[in-house]
Amino acid sequence: MTLSITAPERGFQDKEFSARTAQAQTLLAKAGLAGMLLMSEQDVRYFTGFHTLFWQSPTRPWFVFVPTVGKPVAVIPEIGAELMRRSWLDDIRTWSAPAPQDDGISLLSGLLAPLAGQRAKIGVMKGHETYLRMPQGDWERLIAALPGLEITDVTGLVQGLRMVKSPAEIEKLAHICAIGSAAFAKVPEVIHEGMPLEDVFRQFRLTAIGLGADDAPYVVGAADQGGYADVISPPSRRKLRQGDVLMLDTGCTWDGYFCDFDRNWSICQTSDDAKRAYDVLWRATQAGIEAAKPGNTCRDLFLAMSKVIAEMDHSGGDIGRLGHGLGMQLTEQPSHAIFDETELKENIVLTIEPSLSFGDGLMMVHEENIVVTDSAARLLSSRAAPELPIITQL
Amino acid sequence: MTLSITAPERGFQDKEFSARTAQAQTLLAKAGLAGMLLMSEQDVRYFTGFHTLFWQSPTRPWFVFVPTVGKPVAVIPEIGAELMRRSWLDDIRTWSAPAPQDDGISLLSGLLAPLAGQRAKIGVMKGHETYLRMPQGDWERLIAALPGLEITDVTGLVQGLRMVKSPAEIEKLAHICAIGSAAFAKVPEVIHEGMPLEDVFRQFRLTAIGLGADDAPYVVGAADQGGYADVISPPSRRKLRQGDVLMLDTGCTWDGYFCDFDRNWSICQTSDDAKRAYDVLWRATQAGIEAAKPGNTCRDLFLAMSKVIAEMDHSGGDIGRLGHGLGMQLTEQPSHAIFDETELKENIVLTIEPSLSFGDGLMMVHEENIVVTDSAARLLSSRAAPELPIITQL
Repeated sequence: MTLSITAPERGFQDKEFSARTAQAQTLLAKAGLAGMLLMSEQDVRYFTGFHTLFWQSPTRPWFVFVPTVGKPVAVIPEIGAELMRRSWLDDIRTWSAPAPQDDGISLLSGLLAPLAGQRAKIGVMKGHETYLRMPQGDWERLIAALPGLEITDVTGLVQGLRMVKSPAEIEKLAHICAIGSAAFAKVPEVIHEGMPLEDVFRQFRLTAIGLGADDAPYVVGAADQGGYADVISPPSRRKLRQGDVLMLDTGCTWDGYFCDFDRNWSICQTSDDAKRAYDVLWRATQAGIEAAKPGNTCRDLFLAMSKVIAEMDHSGGDIGRLGHGLGMQLTEQPSHAIFDETELKENIVLTIEPSLSFGDGLMMVHEENIVVTDSAARLLSSRAAPELPIITQL
Repeated sequence: MTLSITAPERGFQDKEFSARTAQAQTLLAKAGLAGMLLMSEQDVRYFTGFHTLFWQSPTRPWFVFVPTVGKPVAVIPEIGAELMRRSWLDDIRTWSAPAPQDDGISLLSGLLAPLAGQRAKIGVMKGHETYLRMPQGDWERLIAALPGLEITDVTGLVQGLRMVKSPAEIEKLAHICAIGSAAFAKVPEVIHEGMPLEDVFRQFRLTAIGLGADDAPYVVGAADQGGYADVISPPSRRKLRQGDVLMLDTGCTWDGYFCDFDRNWSICQTSDDAKRAYDVLWRATQAGIEAAKPGNTCRDLFLAMSKVIAEMDHSGGDIGRLGHGLGMQLTEQPSHAIFDETELKENIVLTIEPSLSFGDGLMMVHEENIVVTDSAARLLSSRAAPELPIITQL
């Protein structure tokens, strides 16, 4: 398989990281904070460029302290020192990990003790869509060792920055969306009637990676007669057959950025209900794309899509939202939901993802990826066909 | 590409989950606990069988409470209800997530309030190789809502159970190790001189998935003249050339279980130092495999390998350990390190992973996967060639 899609440059220039840091520092200063302690893969990468699959091992914690003035400081296991030294950081403190008795805790205490002495306030990520990426017992020990240090939540600050993408980030996202679109376009060629769903997923993954995705970590989907009932299960060995609606949803990655969208096909024949559900979702997606402009909120997007969905689905569903942010994570802030009043801005990258229930416990989903611009939203995925595609030649 | 490796059954029988739960409950009762609250992908899967790629989205927390008596109770987002209903659990409580104001917290409070009223003690995972897989702010709110409830760390209890694999788990691990071995065996056929390292990684991933891996989420490695300096970086566009030592290390998955081992090759020609480093590591691995028997500790394995490594490397390295447990995670407890006195038992699955430094800042790594038996350890990976393989035909 040839790689026909030209890739942009990998990585970022140092000035991207210094600009991100400067923006954060303006907000930290405004909030009266002395800095913030970050420890998730994406937050560490956002400010340093430190990019490795090694995060898949839960053994070692990794820390970056972003002070309100000066460059970020890395406190990391020695095994990552060589890679972190290639970043724009100067101050890299390491220990030989794993060391269950002291996995970076005394290094962090040393770094933060002067701030505790000044009774300063620092931020950590404690809010929605975050978790504590270190042992909770270690966190408790760290805090106990730093009396006087005030801890506050900076989830909104960091998520607010990460939500608005730079041109280089949008280039990466556009690239992986193009690969995802090309992979979906090839699906009719690589599947056949009687193929177990597990093999359909495998062929999709091979196709996406063959076309240039670094990986296809998220491939889910379903296939059943006239629709499907569940969209998060691993594939079964059930064989594709006539009358199935097949849905594949993928998060493929390139240089650490995700696409996240899905496609539906009917196998040889289709029901009127499935056709109608597809049409309603296609138009709901269109309404979402059209509502995605600066000044509108995520709530507005949710309402614009819901209005169309209600033509067929009176339950309102229970997925909780109709799309979300997209970037270094498969799902990021914000959420297109009734509770999310985030105001859209230029360069926010989003999924538009309406879903509906129909028939006897069936559902359908539909998804595109877009970037908000100062005028109409720009599609990053190639828009799905306006009618449910029927694969007749299998 | 044909799938020539016969796969075992996916999933587990219900009795596997009830047996795991019964074992945990014996230990919980012994520790005087009323139950434990689990929230990581692997811990939830271990007791319920709930298996989905949806964990890649950070948006929603998932909870399982394992009471000391009775079946586990799931407290999960509605989007996972359909899949969880296929498990052996009866009590599945759901909410429409995301709901940043109450992401399962009032459901958990309701479940745990009677225990708090009794001033009972429950366990959570707070120790080495764990993290809090929910927003820290939500955790603080939950605990504040449950005065009287005592929280204790059950890391050792859960890790101790998960460390010893069942026959069905070992079958899955053996299967993915066989796929990994077959993929490494094909490397000389799919790479060529002048191929950028990024494409080497891509070809490896395609090969492993083509041979039947569900995914190859962890593919790292390096190639440089006579050795390499770093083993966790993403691939560069640097082209393979004569005199390189190429190392690939992979964590491939099948049905939620990982292999984790690596292979080295020299490209066309090799240095005496690299040959010697390989030989020392091969013999260090052998020493580790031979030391892996019931009654020996992880520390014993570390010392057995270190003794051989010291023939060439006097630094002791700074990787922190020479192998680890393997299962649903790429790296699990225990660690082959000076600090780990875990006693080996039958059916513990391990990586044996010595590394050494040599020459001017170079290193080499070597890794196999084994299962401890009542006599000699059984190799799950096909043992690497005893001499550094030279790929001459590229």
